[in-house]
Formats: sequence, structure tokens, C-alpha cells
Amino acid sequence: MAKNKTTSSHLTAQEFDELFSKVSNWGRWGPGDERGTLNYITPDHVRAASALVRLGRTVSLSLPINTVAGPDNPRPAVHYMVRTFDIPSPRGATQSATDFMGSEVHGNCQTHIDALCHNAYKGRLYNGKPTDSVTSQGATILDIRTYAHGVVGRGVLLDIPRLRGVKWLEPGEAVTREELEASERAQGVFLQEGDIFLFRTGHHRRRLELGSWDSDYGGEGRAGLHATAMLLLHERKVAAFLPDGDGETVPGHVEGVGSPIHALQIAAMGMACADNLQFEDLIGECAQAGRWEFMVVAAPLRLPGGTGSLFNPIAIF
Amino acid sequence: MAKNKTTSSHLTAQEFDELFSKVSNWGRWGPGDERGTLNYITPDHVRAASALVRLGRTVSLSLPINTVAGPDNPRPAVHYMVRTFDIPSPRGATQSATDFMGSEVHGNCQTHIDALCHNAYKGRLYNGKPTDSVTSQGATILDIRTYAHGVVGRGVLLDIPRLRGVKWLEPGEAVTREELEASERAQGVFLQEGDIFLFRTGHHRRRLELGSWDSDYGGEGRAGLHATAMLLLHERKVAAFLPDGDGETVPGHVEGVGSPIHALQIAAMGMACADNLQFEDLIGECAQAGRWEFMVVAAPLRLPGGTGSLFNPIAIF
Amino acid sequence: MAKNKTTSSHLTAQEFDELFSKVSNWGRWGPGDERGTLNYITPDHVRAASALVRLGRTVSLSLPINTVAGPDNPRPAVHYMVRTFDIPSPRGATQSATDFMGSEVHGNCQTHIDALCHNAYKGRLYNGKPTDSVTSQGATILDIRTYAHGVVGRGVLLDIPRLRGVKWLEPGEAVTREELEASERAQGVFLQEGDIFLFRTGHHRRRLELGSWDSDYGGEGRAGLHATAMLLLHERKVAAFLPDGDGETVPGHVEGVGSPIHALQIAAMGMACADNLQFEDLIGECAQAGRWEFMVVAAPLRLPGGTGSLFNPIAIF
Amino acid sequence: MAKNKTTSSHLTAQEFDELFSKVSNWGRWGPGDERGTLNYITPDHVRAASALVRLGRTVSLSLPINTVAGPDNPRPAVHYMVRTFDIPSPRGATQSATDFMGSEVHGNCQTHIDALCHNAYKGRLYNGKPTDSVTSQGATILDIRTYAHGVVGRGVLLDIPRLRGVKWLEPGEAVTREELEASERAQGVFLQEGDIFLFRTGHHRRRLELGSWDSDYGGEGRAGLHATAMLLLHERKVAAFLPDGDGETVPGHVEGVGSPIHALQIAAMGMACADNLQFEDLIGECAQAGRWEFMVVAAPLRLPGGTGSLFNPIAIF
Repeated sequence: MAKNKTTSSHLTAQEFDELFSKVSNWGRWGPGDERGTLNYITPDHVRAASALVRLGRTVSLSLPINTVAGPDNPRPAVHYMVRTFDIPSPRGATQSATDFMGSEVHGNCQTHIDALCHNAYKGRLYNGKPTDSVTSQGATILDIRTYAHGVVGRGVLLDIPRLRGVKWLEPGEAVTREELEASERAQGVFLQEGDIFLFRTGHHRRRLELGSWDSDYGGEGRAGLHATAMLLLHERKVAAFLPDGDGETVPGHVEGVGSPIHALQIAAMGMACADNLQFEDLIGECAQAGRWEFMVVAAPLRLPGGTGSLFNPIAIF
Repeated sequence: MAKNKTTSSHLTAQEFDELFSKVSNWGRWGPGDERGTLNYITPDHVRAASALVRLGRTVSLSLPINTVAGPDNPRPAVHYMVRTFDIPSPRGATQSATDFMGSEVHGNCQTHIDALCHNAYKGRLYNGKPTDSVTSQGATILDIRTYAHGVVGRGVLLDIPRLRGVKWLEPGEAVTREELEASERAQGVFLQEGDIFLFRTGHHRRRLELGSWDSDYGGEGRAGLHATAMLLLHERKVAAFLPDGDGETVPGHVEGVGSPIHALQIAAMGMACADNLQFEDLIGECAQAGRWEFMVVAAPLRLPGGTGSLFNPIAIF
Repeated sequence: MAKNKTTSSHLTAQEFDELFSKVSNWGRWGPGDERGTLNYITPDHVRAASALVRLGRTVSLSLPINTVAGPDNPRPAVHYMVRTFDIPSPRGATQSATDFMGSEVHGNCQTHIDALCHNAYKGRLYNGKPTDSVTSQGATILDIRTYAHGVVGRGVLLDIPRLRGVKWLEPGEAVTREELEASERAQGVFLQEGDIFLFRTGHHRRRLELGSWDSDYGGEGRAGLHATAMLLLHERKVAAFLPDGDGETVPGHVEGVGSPIHALQIAAMGMACADNLQFEDLIGECAQAGRWEFMVVAAPLRLPGGTGSLFNPIAIF
Repeated sequence: MAKNKTTSSHLTAQEFDELFSKVSNWGRWGPGDERGTLNYITPDHVRAASALVRLGRTVSLSLPINTVAGPDNPRPAVHYMVRTFDIPSPRGATQSATDFMGSEVHGNCQTHIDALCHNAYKGRLYNGKPTDSVTSQGATILDIRTYAHGVVGRGVLLDIPRLRGVKWLEPGEAVTREELEASERAQGVFLQEGDIFLFRTGHHRRRLELGSWDSDYGGEGRAGLHATAMLLLHERKVAAFLPDGDGETVPGHVEGVGSPIHALQIAAMGMACADNLQFEDLIGECAQAGRWEFMVVAAPLRLPGGTGSLFNPIAIF
């Protein structure tokens, strides 16, 4: 079966560097550009996306914030009450309960979006910017404020387990360009310029059924894209990438390069990328609506200097 | 001048309790209801809201997260780098920078949405629920998960400084029902069932020009609504409330009751309410588009047990 | 062997309540007392303890703060840099690096001391105080400030693995009064009024050699004291308790009562108790000095309303 | 009066560099030394210090942890309850209350000790070590673990307000070597090799009476040492420095060099230095005992990679 053959197609470090160059957008929108592939989304795309709202139904693409340690959550988010109703109120009969929430942004099981300063390859950020632009007091360029006004456009879901007729992909399985194209044909939807690409491996479905696991390098791993599939995203001018894992195939298939998908998407292409979405609610909506396209509105918190943000993207049908 | 007369219309505690009863939605959607006025938003409203997207432009309604202490920010949010690019990467040539962000949710200058468990009046939450449902380990009912799939609908901005021909309202000034209606007429837009009401006092504009101030009880105060204006919101079946302050007029005008707007909106009406939005970008878009209605998509983080969430609501024209 | 027999001596809930009454110090030092067994330490004891300083050597009794998640550390401490030397200094040629540290106080592998408000039994704190004195904004009585001026006195180490000729006690093994007395005889040291009792099960030695494990209820458990051993501590008027686990035997031997040692020591006796010390350095010093007594100086952080504090107790020979 | 003349004795940048060289201990204890002036404390000193324990009284030298924002506390410590007694206990009749505490280590009103990695001068740490040894994930050398076994020795308090007959020194006043010597004579105590020097300006007394103020550069400032006074500390081989401010005189008197005392003490001398102690309890004990020397035991938390630690030093009489 083709899948297995392709999954085992390893890239040498040199082949990877050639791939990096092919999909690179450095300079495409000028030397000072910080928006990367979000430049592909024009007002026309936003307007067209809104026309997909026909049912008036909304669905979250986010996991609950995870405050419990586990194999994929070594540094859980924290949630502490600041005050409950157990003390006298300074407001008389009106009382309030308040809390504190904190999280490392890039946890392996928190739904979040990466800023373009999040990843470097060979010491360079997107557009060739230097890594010392990220200091101990935050990023000075390419930070999450770039996405302050939201990532809004047409969302297209490619549901690989559905194509394969399985519940989920197993750790280490890599999805190729060919399989993405097969999925497009099967679902009757095609990735186009300015699209927000939702990529489903069934990661969270597996987690729900089998429990959490160490999906990182050195652990059991996870399913993701094959590095060469990035050529398709590049050709189609995809604007944003929202996967249920993080897009990486672990263990990987590129010689000496960890997190190659992040290197390509973020450092080379300047793509708006998220991690750890959940599509369990979404696939029900898609099945009911009979379509795999919808409006997506996603907005990170406006954190100055931030390398990313927890967020809760919404699909609207 | 009418403004001053109305502002000084004080309510006795008994009058306030009568007002509380008049606008109460306890039981309206059943004894177990947790959605409150979001029940007013139907799929038709969402669809109609999407039809307002004609320009394809998006604008954030959120302030930047504020990590610097100040008179209105005694417990600032924290942002720490977890790693920058100054250490060897475990991923070879691919490096990553990550950070931690934490915040008390209900800070006086952080843009956030309140869950219905946030406020009680006379020991009762919305729908008459008991306050001991909020424990030291989080809320067990009426928490922020209620809004997980987003607050999406038609946004209507009433810009009171624009009506008055001033840059901002001064602390302590209360906007009455009559003035809201005058603003509707002036802008040619009317609050209707299921609408998301954006209420502008110019709070943030004042802050930009004069610097931050202690806007709390005991401090200089802030401009907001008059408690009786809630009757209008109740009659019109407004679904959500997004103000640039927090809706409260401080110092207040209700005898012995602090935060009366929160008591009415959250505890009595079960209204989806936010605090501390910024409309400086929005009013430019409104002026350019020549309208004060637009699609709004807002999504809190899905924090189990949370009393609210920082968020970044997006207006789409 | 006696050990196994005694370990399996279970107490009924009623027997435990009788034990609780026997060792209770409620009222002993007046109804408003907050110092509990620290009252046993007089200036004479402090002076006598200082006379044990003959070698001029100091040794820490604390573990390193643990920032890595593990089976006994589900919510690790956090340590973030606030600034490193990678940004320009506002002080010219003088630069500074600063950081943030935070921790839940009562983690299973952080060395800490408990305030008397930390534990209640049947709804009562030490001296019969009500549990609602601990609110969502901190403890209003019996908090860690009670120990502000330090716990200073004669430390006596009873090293049970040494007595038994093993490297460590296994989880679930309970040390009886008789075995404590045997240890005293073997080491030639006797617990007396006002003493600080260091109790070694070899917990940390086991951790160093076998790696960390889930030592909690529901996990593999840990070695500790038998509940009835508390009678010895009560009769001898021990002032403070510093164990390498937390004193509890898990799984326990009291019907329907978890954490019985904490209930007895803290709620009944009002004893200054710590958790998770490390004695690996100490036993070397003891062996070298040929004695198991020394001066101890321990000082919690002065946190208003705190239920305890991380700390670093020092033994001085 | 001499004081004023001396206070206004400014140093040029070149004079400061000469001073830096004069007091430098780089290389004194070998190129890999990390203990700095703690090397001056021998077992004999510890033993002699313990002989000062005659009354058996202990006193904290720490401020309460400050969780309230103020002009000298822009980023207050945080204290959140993790659980109170308002939820069912997993331990049956035994209940526990737990909390979280976190703080930036080097706050202007938190009592803390600095690690030797905390300060650099002209890009070099103590012993000439490079600043890139402190990374975004903590210090790799000269961190707070160096002081793990405590700072224990003879404490000597020089109480400058007592010498001057004032309640406190005013911001900007600098104490000279001559005044330190006058204070020694007046109190009949002399700083010697291995001593722990407690330096009182009355900073906290002023704070208690006048309220907190912005004591930093750009604010009102604070009283401290004159840079040239460091020659005395160097000649006398003082081991540690515990001031009630932080030793700095602000505004300063060295051309182009901020925090010159930290530069000299930490970067040049490798001195164990603390900040923001409170001596209000101590001076009462000293007056009662009729002496300004006593045993001091201070122990930072053992934080791997930490630039310092909150701590609670104890004086024992």
C-alpha cells in the first residue's frame, strides 16, 4: 500500500534544505513583512467565507484547557481561584468570584496558535530575521500581535481517517501530498489561495478512546504530514494551518532535522499555524451539513512580545 | 442639563430590588438553564449577522494584555519566556522559543468576558443558583464553558461620546435609557432581539490621552450605564454586552449596592457580559463603512470551572 | 518478625478517635494559642541546641526545588527567567539577571513546612478552630506567620533503615513506637521535651536509586509512622517533626481515615510538621560526628495567610 | 558636616573602575570558585557564632511577603489558594487546605538573597565568568545552589540612624567608610573576617511611618552605602551583606554606573548579598541584649539555576 511506502520516504538533510528553499516566502512580501501567508487572505476571501454561513451554527475547534498533568502535559496550565463567595463583599449585596489562569503557550495538549517568532531554522526566523530578536523579555518582531485582528477566512477540513476508513492515524504515520489530494477528491473540496486548512489525523479521537500518551520525540510519537506535502500547501497558497496534532510526524523522516513541518511552515513560509485543535464536534457538523468548508474565525490574545497564544477558533456553518 | 439630572437619580435599595425583579430571567429558559440571554441568539441571527460582512475587513475589540502595574492594574498579567534561542535545540537545526502567560481574569484593564458564575446578588447566582457552587477549585455550574462555542451575532455600537460631541464621558457620568435611545436614532441603528450591544463611553480614549487612573470604587471612578437603562436591554432582549469600561458607573447611584450593573446583567438577566473592550479601531471602521452594525465573533478560552476568560472579540465588516 | 505484625495492626475509626483525644493539645496553652508544640521550646532549649555546634559544619535538609513533572510531582514548581543579560541594562555597565519562582506549597516532593491551618479533622483545626477561618483569600488564623521567627532547637535523627540494616523502608511499612525506641537505644539518643524530631525512612534514598514513584494514596504508597507511635511523641513533648516522606504510611492502617498522622500531629497536637526532607547529606555528617543530635534552624517564608512554606532547614554540627 | 560633603563625593567612571579592581576577588580562590566571600567563613567562625547564643531568643530579619502592588512593588508576589475546606476531602475526616505562592525574586520590597549570577559588570560575572552562562532556562553557574547549606556566622549590626540620632536616613544619603567606623566605635563592635554585616539605614522604619514610595532610579531613591565604603568591607574580609534597603544609594554618585554597590559586591567581590531585610524586631533585641552581635542563620531555597531566593534569615541571641 502506498501509504507505507511514502511514510518511509526519508529525506536527507540536503534534500530538506532544497525543500526549505522551494517553499520559502522570504522576501515575497518585502523584507519587513510580518504577516507571511496571511497576506493571501484578501477582503474578498473574508466576504466569500461569510457566504458559507447558511445554517447559523457555530462550533469550537478548541480542546478544554488542560490543568491535569499527563504524559502529553508535563507542565499543565494552572487555574486558581482568587476569591470565591466565602468572604464578605466590598460591594454589599453584589458579590463576585474571580480566578487566575496561566499556561505555557506551546503545550502538547493545549490548543494554541504559534507566532512567526516561535520557530527558527538554522538560526533564522521567517524572512531571514535573526533569532536574537527574541529576548528574555519577549519577542521584538514577528510576535503574536501580528495576528491581533484575527485569522478569518474559509476553512477546509481534510479528514484523513475518514478517507482511510479508520478511526485515527497511528503515531509515526505521515500523510503525503497524494493522500491530501485524494482526500480533496473524496470530499469534493479543494484547497485554494487564502484558505485555512484544517488537517485531521484523529489525534484527539485516539486520546479520547485510548487515553493520553507521550506523543513527543522520544515517546510514542504522533501522526502528521510528510515534509514534502508542504509543496502542495505552497502551490495552493494556503494561508493558515490548523491541525489536530501539530502537523509533525514523530518519529520523523528527515535526517537530522526535528520538527521539520514547523521549520517549513513557520520559518520558511511564514504560515499562521496552530497546534492541538479538536475536530470531534466539527466532523459532526460537517457530516450534517454535507460539506467540509465553512467560515473560520480565530483570534489570539493580544500579548505584546508573545510567541503564540491559547485560543478558541470557531467554525461557522 | 438633562445629563446631570439623570446621573443624580439615585435608587433606594428597595427600588433596586424591584428593578432586579423586573429584568430577572430566572426560570425563563427552565430551572437548569446556563445560557441566559444567549438563548436569544438563534441560527437566524447568526446567519443575518454574517450577511453584514460586505467589506471583508476585520477589527479587534481587545486591548493588548497589560503586564505593567498601574492605578487600574494592581495585579498585572505576567509573561515569562520559557525558552529563547539562547540554548541548544533538542530538534537540531529547528529551534523554538516559548513562553508562559498568566492573568487574573477580571482585571480592570484586561479585555475579558464574565461567566454567569462571576456575580451573585444577595447570595444567589443567575437562575437562583447557590453561591457555594463556586468552590476553591472552580465553579461547578455556570462557568465559562457555557460560552465554549462562541458568542456570534450582530454587533451594534452605541457611541455615546459621538452623540454628545465629546471625546469621552467623565468618571461618574451615567448613561440613561433615554440617551441610549437618542444614540440609536442618531446612528440609525436599533437594538433588537439577539443583538450584541457594544457600549462606548470613551473610557480607553481617555486612558490613551490622560494616562491610566484608578477607576474603581474609592478611586476616581468611571462612566457607565444608569441602572434603569437595563430595562431597555431587557425589553429589547439584548443577548450580550460589550462595553469599553465595564458598564458600571462609579461612584454609583444605588443605595448600598455596589456593581449594580453586574448584579442586574449577570445575576438577574443571565447576560453574556464582557469588560474593558477597546473601540478605537472599531469607530474608524464604522465611520468608514457608514454603519454601526457588523458581525461579531467572540470566543473565550475553554477553561473548566472558570469564572471568565481573557478574549479577543473580532468585528467583521 | 515484629515489624510485619505491627505494620498490620489496624485501628478502627473509634480507636483512632480515642487516640486523637489522648494526644490532643486543645486548650493546653489556652483557647487562643497558635504555637502548639512550639510552646515546648524554651530559650533554654535554644541555648542548649547551640551548644551542640562543635564542628562548625552546616548541612541542608532540603531537596532541590523540583520543576520537572513526575509521578510524585504532578504540579511541578515553575521557574522562569524575568530577564537575562541579553537585553540592554537600564543601569549602564551594571547588568542584572532576575527570575520568578512559584510552587504549590504542599507538593509530594517539595521540602516544606505545614502551618497549623493546613489540616482539619472532622471539621476542626487545632485547638478546635473552625475550618471556615481558611478562606479563598488565605487563612485568617493558624497560618504560617506563626513560625515567622523560626523553628530553632535540638534536632534528633532516628534513622530507621540504619536500625534495620536496609537501604530504605518499602512503601506501606509503618514504624511503631517500639521501633522508634529501639532506634533511640541503638543511636544512644533520646527524644526529649522541646526536641525537633527528624524521622528517616530512606524515602529519598529509594528515589535516588529507583527513580520517583507515585507515593500517594492510590499509588504505590510510602513508609511512615504507625498512628499509635504518636503517643511517644506526645509523651516526650516533641516540638517539631521533620520526616523524609511526610510521616504517613500509605496505604494506611486506620479504618476510614486518610492522612491519620497529619490529623494527629497537626489537628490534635498542634505540632510543627514538615514534609519531604532529604537526609542523605545529614547521615554522612552524623556518621562523621558520631552523633545523631545537632542544632537545627528552620525558617519558613513569612507569607500572610499561608498554609505552609517551602523552606530549607539547616543542621549545624 | 562631613556627611554631606562625603555624600556628594562623586566618582568618575574611571575612578569606579579602579575601585572595582581594588576590591576584586577574581582568582583569589581559584578560577572555578563559586563561593566568593563565603570562603571567609570557616568552621571556627560558625562555632564562635554559636557561642553568641546566650539568651535563647530568635528573631526574623525578613519582611512579610508582599502581595499588594505599590510604588516599590510593581509586580507583587502572588498567593492563591489551591483548595480550602469547602470541598469534600479525598481523605475522609482528614481535610487539608493548600496554596500556591510565587514571586519575582528580586522585588524592591521582598526580602531575598542574590546569587552571584545576579549581577554583571561590563559583561562579566564574578570571577570573570561570561554572562551567557545565564540562559533563558536559568543560570548554569554561580546560581543560588551555591548557598544551599546556608549562610551561617556572626552577624554584626551597624545601625546608622542610631549613630546619627535620627529615625532613618533620607533617600539619596550615602554612608561612608568613616561613618561605618564611627558606628563601630559607638556600638563597640568591629567587623572582622567572616562576619555577616547587617547594615541599617532605617529604610523599613521610614516605610512603616510614611508609607511606601518609589525607591528606585527615577523615583525618590533610597539611602545606602557610598561606593568607596566597599574598601572597608574588602579589607575586613566581610563574608556577607544584609541591608534593609539594598545597599545602593539612589540617586547614585558614580558617573554612568547604576547599581554600583551590586557591581562591586557581587561582580567584583563575589559577596553573598541580600536585599530588603527588616531590622525593626532586631534592634529591640539588640537594645535589650546590649550588644550588636549575634548568630545568624540564613538559608535560601535550593532552586536549580536560580538567580536568588526569597528567604527568612534568623538572628539568634
